[in-house]
Order: sequence, then structure tokens, then C-alpha cells
Amino acid sequence: MQHSNKEDSYEMATHLSVSMDNVLAQLKQITTFVFDVDGVLTDGTVLLLENGLQARKMHIKDGLALQMAMKNGYRVIVISGSYSESVVNRLQYLGIEEVFMAVKDKKELLENFIKDRNLQWEEILFMGDDLPDIPVLQKAGVSCCPADAVPEVKQSSMYISTINGGYGCVRDVIEKVLKLNDHWKFSVDITSK
Amino acid sequence: MQHSNKEDSYEMATHLSVSMDNVLAQLKQITTFVFDVDGVLTDGTVLLLENGLQARKMHIKDGLALQMAMKNGYRVIVISGSYSESVVNRLQYLGIEEVFMAVKDKKELLENFIKDRNLQWEEILFMGDDLPDIPVLQKAGVSCCPADAVPEVKQSSMYISTINGGYGCVRDVIEKVLKLNDHWKFSVDITSK
Amino acid sequence: MQHSNKEDSYEMATHLSVSMDNVLAQLKQITTFVFDVDGVLTDGTVLLLENGLQARKMHIKDGLALQMAMKNGYRVIVISGSYSESVVNRLQYLGIEEVFMAVKDKKELLENFIKDRNLQWEEILFMGDDLPDIPVLQKAGVSCCPADAVPEVKQSSMYISTINGGYGCVRDVIEKVLKLNDHWKFSVDITSK
Amino acid sequence: MQHSNKEDSYEMATHLSVSMDNVLAQLKQITTFVFDVDGVLTDGTVLLLENGLQARKMHIKDGLALQMAMKNGYRVIVISGSYSESVVNRLQYLGIEEVFMAVKDKKELLENFIKDRNLQWEEILFMGDDLPDIPVLQKAGVSCCPADAVPEVKQSSMYISTINGGYGCVRDVIEKVLKLNDHWKFSVDITSK
Repeated sequence: MQHSNKEDSYEMATHLSVSMDNVLAQLKQITTFVFDVDGVLTDGTVLLLENGLQARKMHIKDGLALQMAMKNGYRVIVISGSYSESVVNRLQYLGIEEVFMAVKDKKELLENFIKDRNLQWEEILFMGDDLPDIPVLQKAGVSCCPADAVPEVKQSSMYISTINGGYGCVRDVIEKVLKLNDHWKFSVDITSK
Repeated sequence: MQHSNKEDSYEMATHLSVSMDNVLAQLKQITTFVFDVDGVLTDGTVLLLENGLQARKMHIKDGLALQMAMKNGYRVIVISGSYSESVVNRLQYLGIEEVFMAVKDKKELLENFIKDRNLQWEEILFMGDDLPDIPVLQKAGVSCCPADAVPEVKQSSMYISTINGGYGCVRDVIEKVLKLNDHWKFSVDITSK
Repeated sequence: MQHSNKEDSYEMATHLSVSMDNVLAQLKQITTFVFDVDGVLTDGTVLLLENGLQARKMHIKDGLALQMAMKNGYRVIVISGSYSESVVNRLQYLGIEEVFMAVKDKKELLENFIKDRNLQWEEILFMGDDLPDIPVLQKAGVSCCPADAVPEVKQSSMYISTINGGYGCVRDVIEKVLKLNDHWKFSVDITSK
Repeated sequence: MQHSNKEDSYEMATHLSVSMDNVLAQLKQITTFVFDVDGVLTDGTVLLLENGLQARKMHIKDGLALQMAMKNGYRVIVISGSYSESVVNRLQYLGIEEVFMAVKDKKELLENFIKDRNLQWEEILFMGDDLPDIPVLQKAGVSCCPADAVPEVKQSSMYISTINGGYGCVRDVIEKVLKLNDHWKFSVDITSK
């Protein structure tokens, strides 16, 4: 398997040959969730208002799962190629501190982040839905995508959620990891908000 | 039925063993409807506008049913973990006076409400869709959820509507109770609005 | 057929016994289209913004059909129980002059309108989706509803569109009438807008 | 093939008799993509806000494909019968320079554009969804439409996408042409935005 050029190619992820046992083993190792925004935390649509404003759509069910993950000590990181102040505001409202917007090269940014924090790719779960996400999917310990990801991303993902972007695919993967580690326990200081 | 710890557990509702005859009997006893907001009265999505505003989506069909319930003397109460001024405005416009937002512990709030009004849990129908709703589902005379509630909530509900949150699940349960009591009669002072 | 009380009853429309030949004959007589707004011209959802504004959703395909109808000399009337300035604006932008909002009794309003203009109920096609529309459905020459109308409205309708409210059900019925009369002909002065 | 009258008729496109081999040959010749807005780049809905503003909905996946096309030297042109400042803004943000709004006669505009640039109809791919698009569909080298186009447009299209307007039908046709010409190669200077 050869990389012709970082600029103009992507390839099938080699880790797709892992067995289901290995996937479960890898899911248990996850300490850090990394999510793309458009098409993952949102449904991929952009609402264009006549006054020049835009709007994006998230789901309240994902919000609760993100809080559950952080409350149980998992890191949550959000990386987006686009920039949206309102997305940043909501993510901070949910308690997420590491939000990177208008990112040109997601893999590069994440590589630096991992080095800074002394993390390993093996403990990273990444969920993306489109071509810019593929270089990260090929590195992450667990690579995931929503049900409506583009075909190339599905081919690069170890786990394809049955749920579409913006409708709970983020909760789906958080729930899987937390349940494996017996962390999926609700407490009243978490709210649907 | 034992509660190990209010903070970190929920369990299967014991009243799920009731027979269909009992459900009908319990539905007939209902005097008070209690609804969650996100995922029940709304479709669970949050629209994020660039100017920092949010928007939520309700359905006009639920609005008519809520009016029908109140016109026939039923109490309607709304309890939400989130806070939305616009949701409060619409609910008041429909005539609902008891709206509680940003509630941390729904069961506690409802317990106090019930005591204050001299009500019984048996006459309460509650509809919720996510983990924070489970403690109330376990107490309510009739526990319900929309078709797209999370699995744990479905397991704790006596009746799972065939309709999703924000698309008429509220009307579905109101209609069932009012028809059982021969109250589902339209009058021209109720409007789709 | 007996009316127990205008205030608290509705009943099955007797004209539902007409044969398909009669429906076609009645469709050919239509000169005037009357549409409900919420759930017919819109998808029935109300978007609630934090600044107190609301938003409703219409479909561009219905807009083109409404223009086709008026260009071919058909009357178009819109009657709603709710009030929305933005709905009025869009309907006027499409060229519709007869828009009645915040109507309490649709049948009464329409009866007066028909008398004023020397029209007959036989030439009226009405499309509604919820209980307040039933008294009008029982009078109109052709009674229609969207695919997602409430059951009582479906029972009172001669024609149930296969299309949901807000997604082209209005175009569906306009197209049927215009085609029967050989009026479904596009001209460049009509635009999707 | 005869045009009875530009004003009041359209007809079945004669090029629909081409074989699949010919379609592939014609797809390879495409140098210029022309897209309608409502129902193609958007989902066809218009959101009406109470303050008189409107909003339209586009998909982030189409945005990436439009950038891919332009980066590979294809022309992208957008023509709409409606006018929306926010649509223009987003299209320019994606890098599209040729955006024509409030167009009365799309075929006439495109004929002049083609003459000015010394193009041929054979190198034009056009995607539309409603009656005003048919005269252009009948001229374009490759005529396409989304899955939810009106029946007359489907009859006039060589290729009907399996994807609805506003949900990736634009990406679908761009991807097909670029892959045939070995141009579907992602580079990090393209972002989902």
C-alpha cells in the first residue's frame, strides 16, 4: 500500500482488517473522543438567513452523552473545517473546552495536540463524515462515521453508526465506549439542555 | 423495588408488568398531563444561529390537543431541563400556565407540586424521552415516551407512541385519554395556532 | 344526517359516497382553491426563536403551482386559524390577494365570502389537515387533505394527497384540476421563487 | 422536434433516447456545471421568519464537491428564478463567481453566456427540478435532476440522481463527472465549510 502524495490521495484504512474482538478491545482503550462538526454533531445542513446569518442543527441527545463522557473523565475534542460562533457557544455551554474551528489540516492539528498531551493514537476515537476526515480516520485507534457519511469515509471506518449525523450518532459511539467500561450511569447533575 | 443510589442508577419500571386492561383503567384515571420539552414537545433538535440565538421546533397538531385537554378540565404541566424563553412564550400562548424550565431534578419538583395540589401519582401521565426523565416515568400513573426515545426510556414506559417527538406524540397520548373519557370533542373556540 | 351541535361535533361527510367518475366531474367544476396554512401550505412545524420570533416552512413547488392556478383564472384563497405576518408576505409575493388569518370559524367566513362573490360551494376545492377544517371539508365541492392529516380529516376528505403538508400537497391538487381542464401549461412569466 | 410556442409549451427531450454508453461519453465532455438553486442546491423549502426574513437550506457535502470541481478547472454557474442575498453570499464563499439570481428566462441567459464564452451546449451539465428548468434541460449536453424533481423534469432528464435536492444531489453529479476524468482527488486546501 503506497501513499502517492498527501495532497491528492487517500486510501483504504489498513485497520479495517481487525476482528470484532479487536474492535471491542480497542473501544475499551479509548480515553479521548474527537468529533467533526458538520455532518457529525450537525445534520450537515446549513440554514442561510437573508440577513447573512447562518444556522446549524444539533441534537439534544448528543448533548447529554457528551456531558456523560466528560463527567466520567473522558476528554472531548471538537475539530471543524468551518467556523461557527454559535457552534462554539453551544459546545462550551455543554462543557467542552477543546474546540478547534476553521482547521485546514485536521490530522496535523491532532498530531500536535496528541504530542502536547502525551497521548497515543490508540486511545483516540474519531468520528468524521467527509473526505477531509479520512487522514484522521486512518490514524485514530477507533475510526467511526455516521450512517450518512460519504462512501470513502465509510470504507475508512471501523464502525459505521446506524444513526445519521445530527440525530444521535455521537451519542451512539459515546454510549458504546462508556458501557464497555461500566461508565454509562446517569446522575441528576447532568441535564438535557 | 430497590433504589441503590439516586445519583447513579435507574432501573426497569415495575409497573411494566401491568396488563392491557390495567393500562386502560389507568389511562381513564388521568387528570394531569406532564410533558418534557426537548424530544417530546420538540423534535429534539436545537437550531444554532450565528447571532447566538437558538431555535426549537414544535408541531401545530400538538398545540390543538393541548388546548383540547385544558378545555376539558385536565391539568397540563411542562417540565424541562433546558431553558428557552421562546418555548415558554408559545406554551403560555396555548394557555399552559404551569411551565417549569431549567429543572435539575424533575422528580423532586413534581413530588412537591403533587403534594401542594393534593394530587396522587396515579392521576399523572408523564411523557419523557431521555435519561433524566426515568425517575419520573417510574412514579407516574401512566408513563409514556415518543417513538424515538432512548432505549432505557422505552423500557421504563407503559406506552410507547408510534409518533416521534415534535411530530404529534403529545397529541397521541392526549387523544387516547380524552377519547376514553368521551372528551375528544372539537369546538370552534379551539384553533390551530 | 344530523348535526347534534355545531359547537361540539363533527361527522363523516356524506359526499364520500360519490364514485370516482363523480370526483372527476366535480374536480372539473372547480373555479376556486381554498387552502389552510399550518400543515397544508406549511409542514405543520413552528420554529421558535429565542428572540420571540417564530418561523414557518413552505415549499417552492407549491409556490409555482399557485401562480399557475391564478394565471389560468382560478381564484386562490388562504384561511388560517393562526396569525403570521411572514406567511401573509410570502402569499402576497406569490400574487394571492385573499388571505385571511386568525380566523375563528372558517366555515362562517367562507360562507360569507361565497355569498358576497356569488359563488357556489360546488366550485370550491378546500384542503385542510386538522379538526377546525372539518366543517369546511363537509361543505366544499371537493374536499382534500395532505397525506399526514389527522384521521378525522382523512375520513372527511374525498381526496387524500400522497404528499405531506408543506412538501407539495397543494401543488398536487392544483395540478390535478388544471390538467383536467387542459390548463397545466407553463409560461416563462411564472418563476420558482 | 418542434416548438409550438415558447410561451406555453414544453416537450419530451429527444436526447432521452441516447444509450448508456453515450451518456458516459457525454459526461466525459462536461467542462461546465450549471445548477438551479431551489430544490437542487437547497431542499426546496423556504423558512419564513416573523421579521420578514427568509431562510434556505443547503448541504455541506455539496459545498465540498463544488470546490473540488472548481479546483480541477471546471466552470460552475448557478442560475435561480428567485433572489436570495444569503444564497449568493454562501456561493461566493465557496468560490463560485457566476451566480445569476431573479432570472426570468434561464435558457436565454444561458444561451448568451455560452455565446460570450465560446462554449458549446455539449459541454454543459445542467441540473434543475421544476418546470422553468425544462427548456435548459432540453439544450444541455447532460440534463440531470434530483430524486424529488417534478415528473415533467424527470422525463426531460438523462440522469435522475438517487438523492433529493439539498441533500447531496449536486455532489452526486459532480462526483460522477470528476471520477470519469480521474479528477476526484481530495487535497487539504479544500475544506468542508
